[in-house]
Amino acid sequence: MAFKIAALDKLIEELGHLPGLGEKTAQRLAFHILKSHMDLAGRLSQSLLDVKMQVHACPECFSYTDKDICSQCADPMREKKLLCVVEDPADILRIEESVSFTGRYHVLQGVLSPLDGIGPDQIRLKELENRVDQYGVKEVILALDADLEGDATSLYINKLLKPKGVRVTRLAQGVPIGGNLDYVDHRTLGRALENRVEL
Amino acid sequence: MAFKIAALDKLIEELGHLPGLGEKTAQRLAFHILKSHMDLAGRLSQSLLDVKMQVHACPECFSYTDKDICSQCADPMREKKLLCVVEDPADILRIEESVSFTGRYHVLQGVLSPLDGIGPDQIRLKELENRVDQYGVKEVILALDADLEGDATSLYINKLLKPKGVRVTRLAQGVPIGGNLDYVDHRTLGRALENRVEL
Repeated sequence: MAFKIAALDKLIEELGHLPGLGEKTAQRLAFHILKSHMDLAGRLSQSLLDVKMQVHACPECFSYTDKDICSQCADPMREKKLLCVVEDPADILRIEESVSFTGRYHVLQGVLSPLDGIGPDQIRLKELENRVDQYGVKEVILALDADLEGDATSLYINKLLKPKGVRVTRLAQGVPIGGNLDYVDHRTLGRALENRVEL
Repeated sequence: MAFKIAALDKLIEELGHLPGLGEKTAQRLAFHILKSHMDLAGRLSQSLLDVKMQVHACPECFSYTDKDICSQCADPMREKKLLCVVEDPADILRIEESVSFTGRYHVLQGVLSPLDGIGPDQIRLKELENRVDQYGVKEVILALDADLEGDATSLYINKLLKPKGVRVTRLAQGVPIGGNLDYVDHRTLGRALENRVEL
């Protein structure tokens, strides 16, 4: 149900377009913004424009940056011959948090999904191939989601890069650390059994 | 962990100030906005400013409006002698959805909460009294939250208006429709027993 106040209904509608925000949440946020000091709305409004004006894809790895090249690609300490392939720039944040990776990233900006019309030319595969050739990359780690599209994309990249003599690996799959076996699904458990390691 | 891109980190911070949005959600929303067409950010940005510029409190009932007076107060079909007192304009939406109320509203813009320094002068009690006197209101229905502050505010208003010969009522408390007794807390169940009605 709408409030019949044009500007308020419009804000609720716009907030509702954001992923994961239902109508109730959008209403709650809109009322919070109305109740708050003008500053909150003004700063948020400006931030939205700034982010779109200032942030763009890194021409090298296709992560986000507000410079000519992103901080990872500009870092001379990072190995050029080790690439980690991710779907989205947000995934880089997760991997950086693990503090286990010293190479560079390559953002595909998507995964293969024929049903959605996303083929090899719609994601940054050509650019990945070019980087592998240009820098003589030795290993490519595939850090894609463990779903159908992620698996298909991993297989495709393996086929693409194997003939070049590149080592293609992917993230280990198994029981999460701190995970309770009761709550692990049977496919994950099957994979964990299959890939068991010697103590 | 921050992305070290000033505009992006700023947007994540601003989104994180909204109620109920944690850091992860704020990140997810910021990345969605970055990925989307410029239009989405632009429209949302404009909506935020519009809502603050165009929407203000109705001088009569203190709900929100973008006109001189809100649509409920301007509606001649609504009874002037029946007032429903709510804490926030958002509550009006909930009551309107029930399609059971034909009177007018009065928004307190808060409830009594001595711990937060909110006394009778910080909420719209004086204005409520004025409306009751001016229109000869016959009944005031208190639709406040069923918590400590809501109860205290209800008692205060009762004491304020009873001497004027106004009927002061509040929403019935009991088992929610469709509710499972297993999941109803014992205080609600106690209240439902106390206020049981003849079939």
